[in-house]
Amino acid sequence: MAKKEVAILGVGLHKFGRQLGKSCEHMGREAGLMALKDNRVDFKDIQIGFCGHCNQPLGTGLHTFSELGMTGIPITNVEVACASSSRSVILGADLIAGGVYDMCMVIGVEKMPRGMVPGLVGDISDASYEHLLGLIVMPGTYSMMANRHSYLYGTKHEHFAQAAVKAHRNGSLNPLATYQEVYTLEEVMNARMIADPITVYMCSANCDGASAVILCSKEKAKQYTAKPVLLVGWAQGTPIYHQGDPALSEGPTELLAQKAYEMAGVGPEDIDVAQIHDAFSPGEIFSAEKLGFCPEGEGGPFIWEGNTEINGKIPINTDGGLVSCGHPIGATGGRMIAELTWQLRGQAGPRQVGNPKVALLQNAGLGGMNVMIFKI
Amino acid sequence: MAKKEVAILGVGLHKFGRQLGKSCEHMGREAGLMALKDNRVDFKDIQIGFCGHCNQPLGTGLHTFSELGMTGIPITNVEVACASSSRSVILGADLIAGGVYDMCMVIGVEKMPRGMVPGLVGDISDASYEHLLGLIVMPGTYSMMANRHSYLYGTKHEHFAQAAVKAHRNGSLNPLATYQEVYTLEEVMNARMIADPITVYMCSANCDGASAVILCSKEKAKQYTAKPVLLVGWAQGTPIYHQGDPALSEGPTELLAQKAYEMAGVGPEDIDVAQIHDAFSPGEIFSAEKLGFCPEGEGGPFIWEGNTEINGKIPINTDGGLVSCGHPIGATGGRMIAELTWQLRGQAGPRQVGNPKVALLQNAGLGGMNVMIFKI
Repeated sequence: MAKKEVAILGVGLHKFGRQLGKSCEHMGREAGLMALKDNRVDFKDIQIGFCGHCNQPLGTGLHTFSELGMTGIPITNVEVACASSSRSVILGADLIAGGVYDMCMVIGVEKMPRGMVPGLVGDISDASYEHLLGLIVMPGTYSMMANRHSYLYGTKHEHFAQAAVKAHRNGSLNPLATYQEVYTLEEVMNARMIADPITVYMCSANCDGASAVILCSKEKAKQYTAKPVLLVGWAQGTPIYHQGDPALSEGPTELLAQKAYEMAGVGPEDIDVAQIHDAFSPGEIFSAEKLGFCPEGEGGPFIWEGNTEINGKIPINTDGGLVSCGHPIGATGGRMIAELTWQLRGQAGPRQVGNPKVALLQNAGLGGMNVMIFKI
Repeated sequence: MAKKEVAILGVGLHKFGRQLGKSCEHMGREAGLMALKDNRVDFKDIQIGFCGHCNQPLGTGLHTFSELGMTGIPITNVEVACASSSRSVILGADLIAGGVYDMCMVIGVEKMPRGMVPGLVGDISDASYEHLLGLIVMPGTYSMMANRHSYLYGTKHEHFAQAAVKAHRNGSLNPLATYQEVYTLEEVMNARMIADPITVYMCSANCDGASAVILCSKEKAKQYTAKPVLLVGWAQGTPIYHQGDPALSEGPTELLAQKAYEMAGVGPEDIDVAQIHDAFSPGEIFSAEKLGFCPEGEGGPFIWEGNTEINGKIPINTDGGLVSCGHPIGATGGRMIAELTWQLRGQAGPRQVGNPKVALLQNAGLGGMNVMIFKI
């Protein structure tokens, strides 16, 4: 069956950070209104809504969308851990491609519990395998992956830290990020150690936030804008335990990237700007390799040499990524899509990459992973 | 775009009730294995999975499906309160109809908190409207709806109670129901009062359970069975507050039924067997009217006269419904689909309706509602 082409018609973002006086509904409303305003979409024209969140009460999607209007459209809450809102966008994209709906809105929201969240991660990690290894807090997991990478490939602590230096420098150009502080390599490496080699400045912040994305067919998008951003490739999957080298696998990144590249008809060499799930800075190195941006094992030097800077060969996490923006779980995927949309439209202000035409997103959750490719 | 026809290829159900020694994952596994065995589907052929639940930790879907195999397919958790697993089936049906996937599995699971669940309902009900009226516990809400129905149409307490008498009698024929006790009208009416006119035997039990549904295209189903059950109409929506007569609206039942009837090319007069969301017995009366089984206001006498009995004009809740089966929230929609599938196949044993050809499901949640029509 012929599939329809899918467009990203609007994006919106509520500032990430501690939002003590605001509920998920209020943050989601602001992000939603921004996405509607983006290309002057009337909420009455939205046909189906998804709400990505992980740790909110029943009814969060219903109440968040009700803030924008009560039109009776189906609202479904979607949870795939850190990949919840990008998974929602993939569901919408599949429904649009299949010709079932033609105007979908995704709102991702989260108010995170304060302090450490081992309970949250302990729930989702695998009891028969990961729990036995003590892998119930994420910095520990990334620490083991980083040490394995160093053992196999000689990756240095400086390489991992440099990813954080770059992330914070990019974040300093992003008023919607939780942090806008620039740090030197020494400051990152000498900061409080969380799980060797990961210091506190290499961790995504626990924060609140919201994002919104409006999708429709390319055909429909043409009624709103002459040059819509298109979603041209996507793939979704789930980690497979007990297979391959889990310490380096970053889940099914490689497999899903292959699928998305194939669907989009492009390769890693065509990507002009990317968003990678850097819940902890070493993640950027592992995934840059798996996505094909550099050869296996060379991610450390690749980042060290500046290839992923805003003016580098393949700019990664131009908005500061999870490390500087923070990680309100259900909102993160939508935040990544918003940044890539702004980059492709040339609307990213002081952090704008030259003239990007093709963009890639990798959003990883312990419950699943999504890879998407966008074009303008 | 031409849509593919959708078939229900397999259904499975874990006994509802207190399951103290079993996790969601274990119950979901049993329901899932039963659904796979139904038409000898290999789990390796499942392309996408959804897990409907409301009150379980992160990772429930991932871990439940992992019990059946780790094939890397996308697993997405879906929450729409009481309508979570039927909403998951609608998502699957839309993806199959659109030609995006061709073998989807839905598992609905829930272990309910013990005792009353006002916190759960308080979360999802509308703060600016329902909370002010004290509508944060469901029996109170149904009580007000029942009293309004009596005021407008003269519906008697006996009518509401008779729906429970019938539900328990049907449930006594269903070994997978929480309760298998038969009660007289007097016993139901004289039981402990919960919220006038609703006594304890007119309430769905708080219990644990799991259900599973496998969907694919009609074309594909023919490879497994000569006569598959088809899903020929479906509609999904969300309650609209501040509109119409909410005390009698049962959400958007009427509107969604119209859409589903139109899609299926049938009317209420064609329905041979139905599942209605009787979280409390009066619900069966309200919804029988809204679905067009009897005229507005005549639901009480309609049920009193035996029209919804197994041997009546339009048998409703042949398996005992929520009142006798119990209501493990995320599993309920799948339970309803399982019963209708067995009825259409003639596999419902002592509770089998004559020779049904067309079946209807209405699964209502505070977060949304689904109506589906099946044919064989």
